[in-house]
Parts: sequence; C-alpha cells; structure tokens
Amino acid sequence: MTTKLRIVPLGGLGEIGKNMTVIEYDDEILIIDAGIMFPESDMLGIDIIIPDFTYLLDKKDKIKAVLVTHGHEDHIGALPHLMEQIHAPIYATPLTAGLIEVKLRQPRSSQAIEIIEFQAGDVLQIGLFTVEPFHVAHSIPDCVGFGITTPVGLIVHTGDYKFDHTPADSWPPDFAKLAEFSSRGVLALLADSTNADRAGWTPSEMVVLDAFDDLFREAPGRIIIATFASLISRIQQAADLAQKYGRKLAITGRSMRENAKMARRLGYLDIPDYLIIELEDAVRLPKKEVVIMATGSQGEPSAVMGRLARGRHRNLSIEEGDTVVFSAYPIPGNEETVFRTINQLFRRGANVLYERIAPVHVSGHASQEEMKLMINLVRPTFLIPIHGELRHLKRHAVLGRELGIAAEHIAVVENGTPLELDGESLDILPRLPGGYVFVDGASVGEIGWPVVRDRERLSQSGVVFAVVATNSQKQVIGRPEIISRGFVNPNESDDLLHGAAEAIVRAAEVYANSTSPLNEAIEDALSRYLYAETGRRPLVHVVVK
Amino acid sequence: MTTKLRIVPLGGLGEIGKNMTVIEYDDEILIIDAGIMFPESDMLGIDIIIPDFTYLLDKKDKIKAVLVTHGHEDHIGALPHLMEQIHAPIYATPLTAGLIEVKLRQPRSSQAIEIIEFQAGDVLQIGLFTVEPFHVAHSIPDCVGFGITTPVGLIVHTGDYKFDHTPADSWPPDFAKLAEFSSRGVLALLADSTNADRAGWTPSEMVVLDAFDDLFREAPGRIIIATFASLISRIQQAADLAQKYGRKLAITGRSMRENAKMARRLGYLDIPDYLIIELEDAVRLPKKEVVIMATGSQGEPSAVMGRLARGRHRNLSIEEGDTVVFSAYPIPGNEETVFRTINQLFRRGANVLYERIAPVHVSGHASQEEMKLMINLVRPTFLIPIHGELRHLKRHAVLGRELGIAAEHIAVVENGTPLELDGESLDILPRLPGGYVFVDGASVGEIGWPVVRDRERLSQSGVVFAVVATNSQKQVIGRPEIISRGFVNPNESDDLLHGAAEAIVRAAEVYANSTSPLNEAIEDALSRYLYAETGRRPLVHVVVK
Repeated sequence: MTTKLRIVPLGGLGEIGKNMTVIEYDDEILIIDAGIMFPESDMLGIDIIIPDFTYLLDKKDKIKAVLVTHGHEDHIGALPHLMEQIHAPIYATPLTAGLIEVKLRQPRSSQAIEIIEFQAGDVLQIGLFTVEPFHVAHSIPDCVGFGITTPVGLIVHTGDYKFDHTPADSWPPDFAKLAEFSSRGVLALLADSTNADRAGWTPSEMVVLDAFDDLFREAPGRIIIATFASLISRIQQAADLAQKYGRKLAITGRSMRENAKMARRLGYLDIPDYLIIELEDAVRLPKKEVVIMATGSQGEPSAVMGRLARGRHRNLSIEEGDTVVFSAYPIPGNEETVFRTINQLFRRGANVLYERIAPVHVSGHASQEEMKLMINLVRPTFLIPIHGELRHLKRHAVLGRELGIAAEHIAVVENGTPLELDGESLDILPRLPGGYVFVDGASVGEIGWPVVRDRERLSQSGVVFAVVATNSQKQVIGRPEIISRGFVNPNESDDLLHGAAEAIVRAAEVYANSTSPLNEAIEDALSRYLYAETGRRPLVHVVVK
Repeated sequence: MTTKLRIVPLGGLGEIGKNMTVIEYDDEILIIDAGIMFPESDMLGIDIIIPDFTYLLDKKDKIKAVLVTHGHEDHIGALPHLMEQIHAPIYATPLTAGLIEVKLRQPRSSQAIEIIEFQAGDVLQIGLFTVEPFHVAHSIPDCVGFGITTPVGLIVHTGDYKFDHTPADSWPPDFAKLAEFSSRGVLALLADSTNADRAGWTPSEMVVLDAFDDLFREAPGRIIIATFASLISRIQQAADLAQKYGRKLAITGRSMRENAKMARRLGYLDIPDYLIIELEDAVRLPKKEVVIMATGSQGEPSAVMGRLARGRHRNLSIEEGDTVVFSAYPIPGNEETVFRTINQLFRRGANVLYERIAPVHVSGHASQEEMKLMINLVRPTFLIPIHGELRHLKRHAVLGRELGIAAEHIAVVENGTPLELDGESLDILPRLPGGYVFVDGASVGEIGWPVVRDRERLSQSGVVFAVVATNSQKQVIGRPEIISRGFVNPNESDDLLHGAAEAIVRAAEVYANSTSPLNEAIEDALSRYLYAETGRRPLVHVVVK
C-alpha cells in the first residue's frame, strides 16, 4: 500500500495564518475551515483575501465534507466563495452553523448548501475517515478541534484554542478526550501557533469579567463597549452585568445585531427580553442605566465606534462622562487606526479603557505553556504548527523540540506546501503554484499584484495625464491639456503646469526617434521635468491625438 | 505687571507627540526642540511632517535660542526647516550638537547656523531666562531636560527620559538637580508622557546587555543587529561584546555609519580601531567572528534589513545559522511591516530574535512609577503632560491627580494650544489655526489634505481617463480612448472597456443639459457604468476634444 495521507494547508499569504486545511487520502478529501484573511497594508484597495482553491478544482468529486472548527471570519468567511466551486456538506456545531447561515444568506450564495450539525463528542463517519470533534475553549462559544482517524493513523487538529479553566460559557476544554486520543496513539498534531511568542498562560475570560464588574460598578455614566461582532461571550458578560447593576443593553452595528439575534435564538446567548432595548430608547434613558455594545473595535471608520469617534453617528454622540471600552486587541496592522480612534474618543470627552490600561480583553489563543500542555497531552509522533505567521510556526517548533520531538518530525511549512505522511515518515512536497486570491468589490481574483502596484505608485505621488494634439508633421497644436490628481495642489501649481506644457512641446520638437512612439517620448520628458521640479514621480500618461 | 509666561506646544498632529515647545515671555522666546513626525498611514505619499512655524513668523526677532534636549529625529529632524525661517543659536550637548551638524550638512541648509555647546549642569543666561540643563537617561547618550527660571517662576521640561539607574553610558539621571529645583519651588512641570499606559518601571538598559551577552555567547554564526541609526548606546554594547567574544564589528547603513563616525570622534563611542571592519571584509571572515550593526529596524524596505529580507543587498545575504536581532520596538503603525520583515528573514534561514521573544530592547521612556517619581521629586504647582498621544496625556493627568495635583492645575492640551501661566493660575487659550506641514519630495507645505485624499481614492480603486473626440454637434467621433491605472488588469478587461466606450457614446447622445459641461455628464455616466460592473469607484476624468 503506497497511498499516503496528504495534508495541504491552504489559503494564506505564506506568512499570515492558515485558514483552510485539506486532508486527502486516496480519493477522499476533507476540508477543515475556509476563512478569509484581511489584506496587508500594501494590498491597496483589496477588500479581503480568500484561499486559492485551484488545488481542489480537479478533485471536486473527492471532497466529502467541509468541517468547520468555529464561527470566526478567518475560518468561515471564504465559505460563500468555496461553496460556489464545490458540492459537499458543511459540518458544524449549532452556533457555528448559525453563523454560517447568516454568512451564506448573502446574495452571492444562491445554491442550496447542506449544513449538518454535530455536537462536540459526536463520532462522525465520513467516507473512510472517522471524525471526532472535541470541545475547545476560544473567544467564541461552541468551538471544536477534530480527531480524525485515517488509514495511516490518528491526526488531531486543535482549531483555535486556549486552555481556559473558567471560560465565559463555563464549558472548559475537553482534556479527557485529548488524553484518550493520546492513549490510542496520535500520528500528527496540527496545532494553533498564534501566541507562540507569548510566554506563560493566556489569562482566563474570568479576568475580563472581573474587570468589567469593576467598570460597571464605577462608571459614572453610559458604558459603550466595542468588540468583535462574533464575540458572543462578551455580549453575554455585558448582559449579565447589565442585569446585576440595573442597566439596559442596546446592541448596535448590523453584524453584531444579526449574530446576537441568531445566538439568542439558538440559546447561546441568554438575555431576557426586558433587558434589551433599541439604541433610540437607550439615548433617552438616564445615563447610569445604559450599556451599549458596538462594532468597530478595530477602528474601522464605517463601524459604530469609528462613526462615534468622528461625531458622525446618526443616533448617538459621545459625551463627557461616557466610558468607552475597547474589548479587543488590535489585529496587527490596525494599531494606528485603533489608537487614533481612541484619541478621538478622548477628545470628545469620553474616558476610554483599552487593554493596555485595564484587563478588558484577553487573547483567545494558547500561550507557550498551554501549547506545551497540548503537545504533552496529545504526545504526537509528528508536530505540524498551523495558524500563525512564520515567526510563530518557528517558535512553536522550538517548543516542540524542547519537549523532545525530533526536528525531522516537525514540519514548519507555509500555505500551499503539501505534506505527506505514512505511519513512519513525513515528507514535505514542493510548494503549489498560486497562493491567494484578492477580492475587490465584485471582482474575485481578477485583480493581481500589477494592479495593486499601480495603486501603490498612485498613492505615493498621484497621476498626471496629458492630451496633446498634433498635426500630421507631429507638431503640437495649441496648448497640451494636463490633468493631475493626487500630485499637486491644483490652485498652487500654475507655474509647474505651464512648465510641463513647455516640456511637452520641446519633447515633440526634438522627437526624432522612430523606435519609440511620440507619446512615450513625451512621457519620458514630462516625467523627468516633473521629477526635477518636485522630487516626486507620479504616474504619467500621455495621449497624442 | 500683567505679562504672563506663555507656553505653546507646537508641531504634531494633535495626537502624535509634541515635537517643539515655545516658551515666551514679553518679547523673548525660547524654542525647545524642533522634531519631525512620521506620517500616519492615511497620509499617503508624505515623507515626513514638520511643525507649523506660522506662530513664530511675526516674532522672529524675539527668538533668543533653540534649546535641544537630545539628538533623536523627533526632536532635531525639523531643524533644517526651522533654521531656514529663523536666526537664533542652537544650544545642545556635544553629542546632540554632533548629530545636528550631521543633519544640517544636508544641502537644504545653506546658511551658517551657530551651534553653542553646553554640558549638563551648566547655567546659561539667555535673555531674561536662566536655563539649567540637567542630565536625564534615555536611549541615546547626552540627553538633558531643562530647568528654566522665568519671571513668573521656575519651569522644568523633562525632555525624553527614564529613571535608569544602570544606563548603557553609566551616567544615571540627575536626581539631585531635580530635588534642588523642588527645594526652590517649581511652578510647572512639562513631562514626557510616552509610556503613561505602562504600569511599573521601564527595565534598565542593563537588561539588554544581559540578553546580548547570552546571544553573543550562544549564536552559532554571524550576529546581525538592527536598531535605530541614532542608538549610539546599542552600538557601544555590541562593540563591547564583540571584543569580549572575539568578534569583529561592521556597521552598515549610511545614517548609522555617519552617526557612529561622529560619536567616535566626539568620544561617545569607545571602540578601538582594530575591532571595526568593513562589511566587504566581514563576509570573508569565519561566521563566528562577525557582528554586523544595521539600519532597518522598522522594516523600511530601502534600509539594510529590508534589503536583506528580500535578498536584495549587494554585499550580504542571509544564510542558515545567522542570528538576526531586532533591537527596537516597532513604532506604532510599523508593526505589520516589521513582522513581515521578520518572517522573510526566517524564510531565508535566519534565527530572528525580537522583543517578544527575548529582552533585546527596552523602552527609552519612563513608565508610570517613574512618572510618579518625577512628579514627587519636582513637586510642581502645575503639571503639563507633553510628548504623547492624547490617550497618554490623559493617563499622565490621572497619575498627577492621584499624587494630589488638583485637576485645574493640570493642562491636557494638544499641539497648537497656548497656555498662559502667572504665579497662581494656568489659562488655556484657544487653539491656533494651522497645525502641521507635509513634506513630500522637494515640496514643503504645498501638499495638503485634498491631494492626500485624492491619493487615498486612487489607492483604493485607481483611475480611469477617457479622451473623447466630438464634432461641433457634440457627437462622438470614433472610439473614445480609455486608459486605466490601478483599476483593472488591462489584459482581462476588454469587455469592460468596450462597454465603457459604449456608455460614453450613449451619454453624449442623451446629453441635453446645458447646466453641466459635456465632460462632466460623461464622467457621471462612466462612473455609474463602472460601479455597476465592478462594484468599485475609481477616479474618473474625461477630456472632450
């Protein structure tokens, strides 16, 4: 028997997380998660990034299931795109299924997609794979990892996890199941690496509850809490404290309202009706009787907190005495925007609490000591760090070696690099071509790096267009029309544009080079002139009529 | 006597630091520092930001001196611009003076500028002000704060400081002087707020030395250390350890080489000649015998570390076994770029150490307990938090109130807001117009927000230009010429551009509205067409010939 188990992490930028994993044996494939990534700062104008599904396109018939670990965007956000390409049922816990349903209701997904619910602890037979979801703690309820028994052995995929003994939903991770896997013998552990550079143990969600309790007791006026729209457990904590301290709760921001509604319907949010009010009513209540949960914890300008910070919210404005809480870490790359938003809120008179000055958020991911515990609980033959930038994967590998896993039994690979396992060895195959797909407006995959690089250049120095009329002798007729955007202040650049027009006329006069077209010769001359005058290099395009 | 002492913090974005302070009494003015700020991520294409000097322009004759606290860019970087506008001597300690000289050698500063050196502990009589520089510890040697005796009382400006008992240059801060000021009675304390949201006490530079010692002892091959070009003390630490462990030191990156040369000349860097080698020689030595100090700790693509990360350095390439150290914190907004650079270096086989995984850098600014010590040592009547974002200033004010300073004796103001002090009260005046000035290429102040906003839009969706030829009846002749940049992939957009041309012709056909020009009517129609087809809104400009 020469067939090996193939594991293909897909869907990142190499360095940013692993949002999708393909498990393949013979002609059966399982997919774990299908998430989006957020663009890096140099991916100008790109809305989101999705995994490149090319690897799966000629294997569609083999795909037996899409298993989902939990309902965060970086794990379910690409499902609408994936499910346009493949036909397979989605397996998820009830809350995750609810979040997926909210997501798939988007107009893009017109096909009927089968969603099969399971509970942590179930045993699912899917083709030749036996899939055993086990409960883990994270920053959203109803999260699982998967034990998957394959023909070559048992592999364990942690999903996103931390070992929180006192999670917000009082449902600690399933240590017993991990130990039981270990007793059966685990071939490979695929484990979350997000916090591999954080020493110690991630604080429990309980810490946040304590900080919130202080806050609710002492806040002199309204409390406005920004967090992720999917952070159901934080909404529950706020609701419990609202009840305790005699406040009413308003939830604002479309995505958070939808998620809360679904979570209440499914029983994952336990909030009595009388406690919840509309924002319009909240602004009329005494300030000491109000809590508002809002989106915009990443400083997104169009989310609730971004609009409040700029004084652009329709129903609500920040006032002296308000206490605003950022109950989220800035996602890397968002720090500046988040802190700017915080400064703007201070400027409007709010007192602003954020993670640096009060424990109003904790990470949902395991730190180093928890990662070691996971490895020692599961005792895998092979360790495959997933879900992290390369620096995290490398660090996770160091931890694995410290615990006695041989270096050649640890695979630090980036997305798109297939691994093959038999019972004894782990092979790293050459990286697949492609990588990830840009989504920009209605376009999925049509925009690539050349367009983004043009945007980069436009963003640095703008663009100058010139329309030059010539006669049949290629002499310039009249004054060239020059238009610039993002280059100079139009009201202060008369001299510059006058000089530019002269440079164009001169370039046409000396034009004698039949190997390049007249418009290119003029573009060269115009670019040189503009650089000499301003020290900047706008995109220059010349049309000769 | 009605004259009050006026203090004007100048030169930030409101929220980003205070890079310049004006002290004014009657017709005498002192300026403290003149630094640059780095642009925020939405200030596209802007190179640096300098303070707006407008306030000073009609008071040039009153300016008696520019006092400089230390040689970092955010304190001296705007001097070349300031000294073009005013005539006054610059006062600085020898190392700071050396760094200013390096800076002023830029071609922009053609005038002869007088630089007067002083030592911490000197007493300078400047007009009616008695200026007493006192030594503070920070992340560059030869730093001072200033005690300034004015007609209304003694004010103390800390500069950037921390209370490091074991600084790299073994010169601890001058506690005695601060206590002595206190015994004389301090009217106002202007104090560094950078780390106001950090609890505790900033670790000493000694911690870094210990971490570096471990690193030098254990690194299996070359050591490459990235830090700020001005971090003289880190260069000294690396040199000392190079000597201890039998390595040679190469310094690379233009700005770091210039600074190191000047600091050695002035005696602030004590490195024997035989220890220093050129990079060209370093690459030929056994790897265990080499340390390289380099620029690029912020992930700047054109600095040494950025080029190494992308494999684009002329003389040096990263190899398996190299240990790379980022001995700097990412400046807020740079996190993503720094971490991307770190990932790239890992990908090339280096082991990379950074602050998260080893104490290879410490902040140069006081944390909360040090800030409290400063307040209690100086015991000022008024507290004016400076040098920080608004969130830091607010937090600093909280600390001041906790120590018993009355709320009305603390002024949290943003740049451009003048304060007036007599012996008894502190008034906050209305904010000055203006704020800060963009420098972009050779242009200083000509580029404002309208241009930057155009760049923002260009960066999101690019630009579409169309040239439409019409006859005298305003009918379109021939096919409109359409050019796009940063909008669509030109090879995959034939259908779209064909449709766009049709939309233009249709718009011209139905054009009947003499209140707006034909080109605007076409722009509207073209924008609508493109949005309907792509969901994106490029800048659209139409020229009708």
